[in-house]
Amino acid sequence: MSVSNFAQQASKPSKILTYETINPHVKRVEYAVRGELAICAERIKDELSNGYSHNYRFDTVVNCNIGNPQQLKQKPITFFRQVASLMEYPDLLLPENRKQIEFLYPTDAIERARRLLKQIGSIGAYSHSQGIPCIRDNVAKFIEERDGYPAEQSSIFLTQGASAGVQSILQLLIAHSNVGIMIPIPQYPLYTATLALYDAQPVPYYLDEEKDWGLDISQLASSLSEGRSKGLDIRALVIINPGNPTGQCLTEQNMREIIDFCHKERIILMADEVYQTNIYQPAERPFHSFKKVLRSMGEKYEQFELFSFHSVSKGMIGECGRRGGYYECTGIDSPVVDQLYKLASVSLCPNVQGQIMVDLMVQPPKCGDESYALYQKELSGIYESLRRRSIKLSECFNQLEGVTCNNAQGSMYLFPQIRLPQKSIEAARQASKQPDEFYCLAMLNATGVCVVPGSGFGQKADTWHFRSTFLPPEELFDGFCERLQRFHHEFFEKYRD
Amino acid sequence: MSVSNFAQQASKPSKILTYETINPHVKRVEYAVRGELAICAERIKDELSNGYSHNYRFDTVVNCNIGNPQQLKQKPITFFRQVASLMEYPDLLLPENRKQIEFLYPTDAIERARRLLKQIGSIGAYSHSQGIPCIRDNVAKFIEERDGYPAEQSSIFLTQGASAGVQSILQLLIAHSNVGIMIPIPQYPLYTATLALYDAQPVPYYLDEEKDWGLDISQLASSLSEGRSKGLDIRALVIINPGNPTGQCLTEQNMREIIDFCHKERIILMADEVYQTNIYQPAERPFHSFKKVLRSMGEKYEQFELFSFHSVSKGMIGECGRRGGYYECTGIDSPVVDQLYKLASVSLCPNVQGQIMVDLMVQPPKCGDESYALYQKELSGIYESLRRRSIKLSECFNQLEGVTCNNAQGSMYLFPQIRLPQKSIEAARQASKQPDEFYCLAMLNATGVCVVPGSGFGQKADTWHFRSTFLPPEELFDGFCERLQRFHHEFFEKYRD
Repeated sequence: MSVSNFAQQASKPSKILTYETINPHVKRVEYAVRGELAICAERIKDELSNGYSHNYRFDTVVNCNIGNPQQLKQKPITFFRQVASLMEYPDLLLPENRKQIEFLYPTDAIERARRLLKQIGSIGAYSHSQGIPCIRDNVAKFIEERDGYPAEQSSIFLTQGASAGVQSILQLLIAHSNVGIMIPIPQYPLYTATLALYDAQPVPYYLDEEKDWGLDISQLASSLSEGRSKGLDIRALVIINPGNPTGQCLTEQNMREIIDFCHKERIILMADEVYQTNIYQPAERPFHSFKKVLRSMGEKYEQFELFSFHSVSKGMIGECGRRGGYYECTGIDSPVVDQLYKLASVSLCPNVQGQIMVDLMVQPPKCGDESYALYQKELSGIYESLRRRSIKLSECFNQLEGVTCNNAQGSMYLFPQIRLPQKSIEAARQASKQPDEFYCLAMLNATGVCVVPGSGFGQKADTWHFRSTFLPPEELFDGFCERLQRFHHEFFEKYRD
Repeated sequence: MSVSNFAQQASKPSKILTYETINPHVKRVEYAVRGELAICAERIKDELSNGYSHNYRFDTVVNCNIGNPQQLKQKPITFFRQVASLMEYPDLLLPENRKQIEFLYPTDAIERARRLLKQIGSIGAYSHSQGIPCIRDNVAKFIEERDGYPAEQSSIFLTQGASAGVQSILQLLIAHSNVGIMIPIPQYPLYTATLALYDAQPVPYYLDEEKDWGLDISQLASSLSEGRSKGLDIRALVIINPGNPTGQCLTEQNMREIIDFCHKERIILMADEVYQTNIYQPAERPFHSFKKVLRSMGEKYEQFELFSFHSVSKGMIGECGRRGGYYECTGIDSPVVDQLYKLASVSLCPNVQGQIMVDLMVQPPKCGDESYALYQKELSGIYESLRRRSIKLSECFNQLEGVTCNNAQGSMYLFPQIRLPQKSIEAARQASKQPDEFYCLAMLNATGVCVVPGSGFGQKADTWHFRSTFLPPEELFDGFCERLQRFHHEFFEKYRD
């Protein structure tokens, strides 16, 4: 590690803190989802809103680079926002406002807010660092009902989104720079970014594009043995299910094999399950939680160590800006849980409105409640539309020359492969860009559509992809696909070999 | 660094992840504000609410361990919560609800919410990773008005509370394990906790209790030279002003000396200014920001590098549960700012309700606005009460045998010194506790008052202190002080030498 003493840099008197002197691990972090493409898209947005629209053949930028539903006009769940609104301003619940409140809010939202306020007190106070106990109780009940196996509130940590939870667990696991963490390729770049930041080694295993991005257990074994042969201390396996950016959904059988593999190899499992309700082939590919599959495997696996992550940002809820989520510790030694609590306490607590959204996610209106019908209608409206959009977009991609795209079994993304013309690959190299990045930049400049190059997620050598959400509003889809197709055709004409 | 390979631990087949195998830096973290005392207080609270009140001579636990005003019944600022409530549920602003909304909300809250919604869109969407641009504009204006010198939105990062900001900057600065960061003793334990976590070396400088916890520049010089003599690469000086846990407020002259010291020694200044409006001797000891003092020192210091932190959790706002704050980069090289942006983008964005609270903090109702009178009344009510309570509590402490306590010039804390009887020090050693921890645990068990032992903040060898907020509701103060005095008397009688 290079040691540069600030005070001795007499040759560079102007600035003390420079790119050269900062933490080298920070420099190594890459996060393509908000990388160069996204920064470029922001710049174009600014130009458009400052009257420079004549520079472009489109009038809006569409951010397909990030799973951010409400940015793309997805409406929030009404009941959730009603409760949150009452929590913000409890004076609304005073007797003198009764008439107005009963006009504006349904009874069950008022009751829920009253109950939460009684349990929590002010949302302006720091809560328990692990999360408000009664909300953790509700999360435990939710998990029990989902899985049919017990869960305990003391094993649940509320977090500022799933990302914060993943980062805490990786921070705990990374005891030295020789720690290896197995991650899928393609992967969500939170994982490589965090491993770079905390100075650990990614140990990649490849998903099989030919088999709907399926996970082959022999891939895990060969990846593990390759990592170990380099002397790495391989501590955990990350599974993203449903997949991001790849959208696959694991079968129960496959999950059993994965658990068995980790058990045999003494590896901790980290299950990123934030897309658990984004399931588009529920009959053939339903979601199973790793916790449930693990418990169904009986006593032999009782001591198995698993961290499972969930979030309010995805699903039909899409409350990304809220920063709310949780993780469950299964089979984790209690002195280790104590250390996680201590770590959480340094940051005091997750934001309380995020915690309340977790409560609402795990306890939505029930059959018989005043808000149930509207809740169901909103939920299924968003769900059905997402499913339609996922199909529409994969059809659009599959019609493009040289492009193939698997259907999304789950999540919010498609990850099409583009067989780029050799000339475009050479043009990219001359522009010091990755070929897929070059293609995506051209797409952004021609159409206003911002996607993320496959190189930001990892991909097999000499294959090129991009990730696109299917979140733009449905009514824009035809125009959107048309613009994409026109651009793609022109790009291929220009660089045809 | 010890390398323990999980897979090789055949002797310990039951658990893979144990206290022994986790990241050793996590183990070294200490955070007394939510440490053993606070955990013990939670346990007593549970006992009291489960009907075991006969175990105690009190019926409620009073959390003076943490600056958490709304937990101790401080009312939130009405205007702020009105705007937040409308932001949560924008349907309230539909024409059909006009009559009800105009009854429930003042016009300026409705207008503010409309404007913010137009600028931001849904609060459920991820925002710009650095914070919503128009809110950063307002922060820049606030700084300009406060200081009389320019500020730029591109240099401002909105954060999930000041703690998150401090952690980002330390993460950036700590390039290797020989980095030293100068911190005050006593200090807020966020600093030592973060240095332990990121594996850097605290370089302590002592505040002078005899001089109202003043900062003597010769202390900085000797601390620095001691650190450098150990071969440390000393990169930054942390100043907490107004002080936590010590409550002092620096004079402008002293601040100039500090800036000059850092400039001469090529050290970056980190100014933790979260208590900037908690100023109780405004005539003698007004708050000056380091940014303002720096700019007043002219061209010679133009390149000076400063990070300044602020928060919505303190002041008269006290919105701790919100997790909102910001930091300003002054004189920081732009490639370094780019790296901070990249780091922020991995966590996507600070929670949007926290960002909105920052907007409200920096743009409160103005003279002429409908809500101005109420806002002023709430603000000065909280302020005057805090000032009265700070004096009342320091008087209470100063009446105790063997206790001396400086008045609070600022912040929310008192940090009295207790000259403990030798017998109690021996009893503490036998119980494997620090003497001040032993005293504070006895206080908690006898009175229900939870404070933090001085050893959690650092103190001169063989002196003992504790930190107490003066936040309990004013009407409880007499009973509260009486309980404390009775306990203290009994403790001293029991252990009298």
